[in-house]
Amino acid sequence: MQDIKQYIEDNKDRFLEELFELIRIPSISSDSSRKEDMRRASEKWKQILLEAGADRAEVMETKGHPVVFGEKMVDKNAPTVLVYGHTDVMPVDPVELWNTDPFEPVIKDGKIWARGADDDKGQAFMHAKAFEYLVKTNQLECNVKFLIEGEEEIGSENLPEFCENNKELLKADVILVSDTSMLAPDTPSITTGLRGLAYWQVDVTGPNRDLHSGIFGGAVANPINVLAKMIGGLLDENGKVTVPGFYDDVLEVSSEERELMGRAPYDEEKYKAAIGVDALQGEDGFTTPERTGIRPSFDVCGIWGGYTGEGAKTVLPSKAHAKLSSRLVPNQDHHKIADQFKAYFESIAPDSVNVEVSVLHGGQAYVCPIDIPAYRAAEKAYQETFGKRPVPVRSGGSIPIISTFEQILGIKSVLMGFGLESDAIHSPNENYPLEQFFKGIETIPYFYKYFSSEMK
Amino acid sequence: MQDIKQYIEDNKDRFLEELFELIRIPSISSDSSRKEDMRRASEKWKQILLEAGADRAEVMETKGHPVVFGEKMVDKNAPTVLVYGHTDVMPVDPVELWNTDPFEPVIKDGKIWARGADDDKGQAFMHAKAFEYLVKTNQLECNVKFLIEGEEEIGSENLPEFCENNKELLKADVILVSDTSMLAPDTPSITTGLRGLAYWQVDVTGPNRDLHSGIFGGAVANPINVLAKMIGGLLDENGKVTVPGFYDDVLEVSSEERELMGRAPYDEEKYKAAIGVDALQGEDGFTTPERTGIRPSFDVCGIWGGYTGEGAKTVLPSKAHAKLSSRLVPNQDHHKIADQFKAYFESIAPDSVNVEVSVLHGGQAYVCPIDIPAYRAAEKAYQETFGKRPVPVRSGGSIPIISTFEQILGIKSVLMGFGLESDAIHSPNENYPLEQFFKGIETIPYFYKYFSSEMK
Repeated sequence: MQDIKQYIEDNKDRFLEELFELIRIPSISSDSSRKEDMRRASEKWKQILLEAGADRAEVMETKGHPVVFGEKMVDKNAPTVLVYGHTDVMPVDPVELWNTDPFEPVIKDGKIWARGADDDKGQAFMHAKAFEYLVKTNQLECNVKFLIEGEEEIGSENLPEFCENNKELLKADVILVSDTSMLAPDTPSITTGLRGLAYWQVDVTGPNRDLHSGIFGGAVANPINVLAKMIGGLLDENGKVTVPGFYDDVLEVSSEERELMGRAPYDEEKYKAAIGVDALQGEDGFTTPERTGIRPSFDVCGIWGGYTGEGAKTVLPSKAHAKLSSRLVPNQDHHKIADQFKAYFESIAPDSVNVEVSVLHGGQAYVCPIDIPAYRAAEKAYQETFGKRPVPVRSGGSIPIISTFEQILGIKSVLMGFGLESDAIHSPNENYPLEQFFKGIETIPYFYKYFSSEMK
Repeated sequence: MQDIKQYIEDNKDRFLEELFELIRIPSISSDSSRKEDMRRASEKWKQILLEAGADRAEVMETKGHPVVFGEKMVDKNAPTVLVYGHTDVMPVDPVELWNTDPFEPVIKDGKIWARGADDDKGQAFMHAKAFEYLVKTNQLECNVKFLIEGEEEIGSENLPEFCENNKELLKADVILVSDTSMLAPDTPSITTGLRGLAYWQVDVTGPNRDLHSGIFGGAVANPINVLAKMIGGLLDENGKVTVPGFYDDVLEVSSEERELMGRAPYDEEKYKAAIGVDALQGEDGFTTPERTGIRPSFDVCGIWGGYTGEGAKTVLPSKAHAKLSSRLVPNQDHHKIADQFKAYFESIAPDSVNVEVSVLHGGQAYVCPIDIPAYRAAEKAYQETFGKRPVPVRSGGSIPIISTFEQILGIKSVLMGFGLESDAIHSPNENYPLEQFFKGIETIPYFYKYFSSEMK
């Protein structure tokens, strides 16, 4: 596998040109006028997989945008790796903030600038080229399957059903995903956890109409006052969520892993400066990376009620509303948490108002143990090419489909991300450093090598 | 004065036709396209006063809509009554909910239906006709001045300056106002108090942009969570405002007046049913009428922040906002309360956010003692025509100009309202019962009679 660097060097212009062809397709999944582009992007992926060496590849239908499946079987007894990626991208608004055309990639300052350059066209494409290298040089020791979906940016709505209907087709020993970031170019890391999510809307109704705050104020419960008090009590003075039972199923992270996580570079002053706050706030007894990585959180995502226009209008409003969410950690079941919260929040409502809680959304957390063969293989692969043992990182965000894969297919995912925080995914001027792109193509073949030996 | 009933009977059709001419002028002060109508309404009032027997009447300019002043001096040594009213009306939106043209008055079911039928064209016009009766029958024992403004519904913005510049002109022993309501047709009442008002906007800023609630949630203070907790703590479990010093200047109402106030008919079940709530909520130790009449209140008039659209969007928002107000009682200074609140609210803000409090609006409370000559005269007048001693009522609402009169002119107002709660002022299908209209014309002359003797 010593020739991988040379292979990249010999083919880099072609790799970029192929990636750019993919990027030029404006495959925005949320934009219904882009439906044909979504199909073109899927067809393009079929072509990419076949040219890279897949035995077969096909565009498969779902109730939404299509899915691309491809595979190459080398040996019935070899381990099977399922590569997951997505070909849909986020919208480009506000387009006026882009320095270049989002769908005409340019290379500048050592980076590819375009929508999808990182997320996830650039990162998924690394897998196609790593696969091509292994096939062309006869070094592929695993069976490989590819699953490229078109709805990741809109919640992977139809992928669970696709998985249910194609369990045999998707059978594998591990799912390999590059759709996350690493800490820094010189600090490789592997995302070992994703938080789950519970999301509610609460609607508080007081009087049957907006009332005159002079005539009624002081005698009639104000739904906003009530909602504020109810929400204000959901976090105690130690930053803990007060919903009874909320922490019952939280798995405490081993001291070894906390210690390893603690090695990740973290500069509190820089962190505060980047978001413009003077002080951080969170659960007592945990560091900032732990608060977002291994602890659940509670946030009000939105609140509204009464008069919100210019100036002073006095009103005792009839209604108040809020959108509330919790990020959950592994072993917390989002259904259970959603029900616990609903029961509690409704139980603390005073008689003077009516409180309704609706569960809007949910997803399970995901954790990848750091002692499974696939994680060890990934660790060794980064060690090989970056010269450093990668840091396991619990990300605060959620990729719901990863836990769905585990539930439906029973397969763990390893999140080998090569993106950087500065890549501006989902924002104007998305970019992906060429160095990360090529380093990804260089690292992935080692994963296959080490995974194959770990599984022997 | 026994002939007042007969005088009304003989002239009722003319009274109504004259009132209707006034009502037909669409004098909506907040609508800049109605500026000419505002002037026409003022000219109409000048004509009404002159025809009723004023020695002089004139339309006087302000920086906004004009003011009408008229007077009749009977005796330098007689007491002087200044009648205050307004000729501007509220907008008529939503006009589709009106059963008849808002500016074409009709009589149906014993009521006048039109915008301004009660507020305040109908009620102010009663004073012109009571005055006419006294002049025409040579029974006027007081000097009378009229001040009819055109900006009451938009906050009487220019009237304070007008008062400052015309103190001599407006000199009087009492101000008489019919711009409030009484409890019921068979339960006369006099509004003896109006609450003051302090109004703030609070802006809470956390991070410098909306953050990903997964990546940052749990480690960064969420401005909505913080705002909710801060607001939630402003009322304690006894319904008391927790701002230090808030109650320092609250005048406790005498037990005699509380006892008198308690005689006003009040049915808690009907009250709750009318506004559609199962339970009331307020300051411990006070009845509902006391909570709105003699105690200060605290209400959130509006709140907003984060994502408020359809469905579930996760965000840790940068900002949260609320509009807060307190109704104040006599002796609470709105400037002092505004400052106390601002200082306290900013002091309880955690380091993790920035909190700004802006004072948007304020007005002093007003109270009319029940033992002054003008109040006693009003009491006797109602007793004469309704056969019952009127109940003193502290209204929760605010008419800021009434306390401004006291501050600038040093004159107390007596609020002899003849409207009913069912008159739908400020709403579609405003109406004014003919019986109240004529009863007002019948009652007002007795006020002059008894005021004159009280002042001897």
